Amino acid sequence: MYAERMSRTRRRMGEVGIDVLLLSVGADLPWLTGYRAMPLERLTMLVVPAEGEVTLVVPRLEAPRVIGQPDVFALVAWEETDDPVALVAALAGAPATVAVGDRTWARFVVELQARLPASRWHPGDLVTAPLRAVKDGAEVASLRRASEAADRVAAQLQGGEIPLVGRTEAEVSADLGRRLLAEGHARVNFSIVAAGANAASPHHDAGARVIQAGEVVLCDFGGTMPDGYCSDITRCVYTGPPPPEFRDLYAVLEEAQAAAVDAAVVGTPCEDVDAVARRLITEGGYGEAFVHRTGHGIGLDEHEDPYLVGGNCDALVAGHAFSVEPGIYLEGRFGARIEDIVVATEAGPEPLNRVPHGLVVVEG
Amino acid sequence: MYAERMSRTRRRMGEVGIDVLLLSVGADLPWLTGYRAMPLERLTMLVVPAEGEVTLVVPRLEAPRVIGQPDVFALVAWEETDDPVALVAALAGAPATVAVGDRTWARFVVELQARLPASRWHPGDLVTAPLRAVKDGAEVASLRRASEAADRVAAQLQGGEIPLVGRTEAEVSADLGRRLLAEGHARVNFSIVAAGANAASPHHDAGARVIQAGEVVLCDFGGTMPDGYCSDITRCVYTGPPPPEFRDLYAVLEEAQAAAVDAAVVGTPCEDVDAVARRLITEGGYGEAFVHRTGHGIGLDEHEDPYLVGGNCDALVAGHAFSVEPGIYLEGRFGARIEDIVVATEAGPEPLNRVPHGLVVVEG
Repeated sequence: MYAERMSRTRRRMGEVGIDVLLLSVGADLPWLTGYRAMPLERLTMLVVPAEGEVTLVVPRLEAPRVIGQPDVFALVAWEETDDPVALVAALAGAPATVAVGDRTWARFVVELQARLPASRWHPGDLVTAPLRAVKDGAEVASLRRASEAADRVAAQLQGGEIPLVGRTEAEVSADLGRRLLAEGHARVNFSIVAAGANAASPHHDAGARVIQAGEVVLCDFGGTMPDGYCSDITRCVYTGPPPPEFRDLYAVLEEAQAAAVDAAVVGTPCEDVDAVARRLITEGGYGEAFVHRTGHGIGLDEHEDPYLVGGNCDALVAGHAFSVEPGIYLEGRFGARIEDIVVATEAGPEPLNRVPHGLVVVEG
Repeated sequence: MYAERMSRTRRRMGEVGIDVLLLSVGADLPWLTGYRAMPLERLTMLVVPAEGEVTLVVPRLEAPRVIGQPDVFALVAWEETDDPVALVAALAGAPATVAVGDRTWARFVVELQARLPASRWHPGDLVTAPLRAVKDGAEVASLRRASEAADRVAAQLQGGEIPLVGRTEAEVSADLGRRLLAEGHARVNFSIVAAGANAASPHHDAGARVIQAGEVVLCDFGGTMPDGYCSDITRCVYTGPPPPEFRDLYAVLEEAQAAAVDAAVVGTPCEDVDAVARRLITEGGYGEAFVHRTGHGIGLDEHEDPYLVGGNCDALVAGHAFSVEPGIYLEGRFGARIEDIVVATEAGPEPLNRVPHGLVVVEG
């Protein structure tokens, strides 16, 4: 599998004119080799020239963690007093063009540039993003398992199994995190719990605010499964009967989210999916209150290509996996968001999250 | 506090000839403003010119998370279809020299460089690392609280309260993590559990290996407290009576670690502290088996300046906080490491970890 991905990566390097690809921290490296670099000041870097041997440069004390893939890369371990930047520069040769993994630490980019002053630098995404964005069958199965695990937690939320009223947002956030782990995640990536007026801040930090009866509780949570693939889901519940203003907002949102999912057909430009949600929310009278894009790709990263956002004219292809998550935010009052992970298939859009979208009233 | 740090940062920019400092993800930004950027594809960046207004550029949906510091920075929120790189480049002006925060994502570095082609780029550490390395009284107090919390977990380990034999490394790792949280950490950063021959790999990933009676269990764990400061401690226990070979190794290690702590006196070059540990371990016959540096600075990051490593001639100053953690690793057999966090003070080195160093035999 890794050899095949390497071959596709090199073909793409040729197509976009990249002489050397350099990958460090982030998901490109495990996607291509099975190895994830530790985010440390000790440089780990895969050096992929257009032709010839691929080399994984690692600190000696990380070397035992590497599971060798002799048909994919050679391993070079550097000692504590070696200069790994010089080592990578030597392996890179004298490339006219370099693409560097998009999360590589700036310090290494700047130090490598000083060693390779004649090269033109490009983001590594130029090479890897369109390859990683298209999931194969095994990757879709991994994303499905991740979504199913998140769904079980969302069902607990909707079923009233998670106490809300009287607890702080932070306590509920931690509870959701524990449940993600209990349902099979290896790591919790985020767990937004925003109650009442806090739900009008899309990326609210769950805090000390105590959840009251009679308000919205927006929960947006996700994590990484042991195989590296991510979940991401948002559901809102109301602690008591919602007022008519909120019901109206939620009905508009629910219709917009469903329509955007239906619009995510292979061949459709990404921005058109965003436009479908935006048009319905605007017609519902909340256009100004939908302050973010409709969705993001998901895979080994929580956020990756393709992005469902105005300006992205790229068409959806079979195997694209992404969130569809419009939201409506009324400052000082309340907000709501509904989010599913969806895969574009030749047979149409397939939502991986299956818990209901309707507004659930919980008494807890 | 932030205004004073900003003033020192700008003074340092002048000293090292940096026209604009650009900070994104990582600890520089919270150290300077109290705000931590989310590690997302949406750019957050603090633009610090040598003179004039400092600006924090954030995605609009992150803006509600920012606690304003009007005497430190102005806030500019960008909309989903804006180009934040163009915005930052415009705020930067036409700098001859730019320093960019060391963990800034490469994609933003490369995109910014395309907009500022006449600038020379440097690592942000050039400006911030020596400032952040020297902790003030409040920061030392924060590190002490973090170390005390880690110590309580280490004491549970040494006291036999944590079952070992019959559990997997991964189970014990998760247990240590839960205990770090229970003792006050907000986040677990790592929890290495390496049993038997696995202890010969310094950064071993805790795995499915079941811990046996009669072997070493190396535990190296740390996390981040709610105020952002980190802990990091290593202790080894033996599940039953250790063989003489291990006792010999451990005695050499214990002496070397204590001598290195004693050597960490203000004015001493960092590499000399490393050399003290290395000389004693070499004299003990294990020189080849001490495969890493002696320590790293700690603060808002687990690893930061100063590094106790051969080649680092910088002298310790009062307020430097760092790990002292020599190790001895015999491949295929066993390994050990002892680690404390230490602060250099005018009155001498002050270890923040206080749990005993001696080899503890646990029956569990």
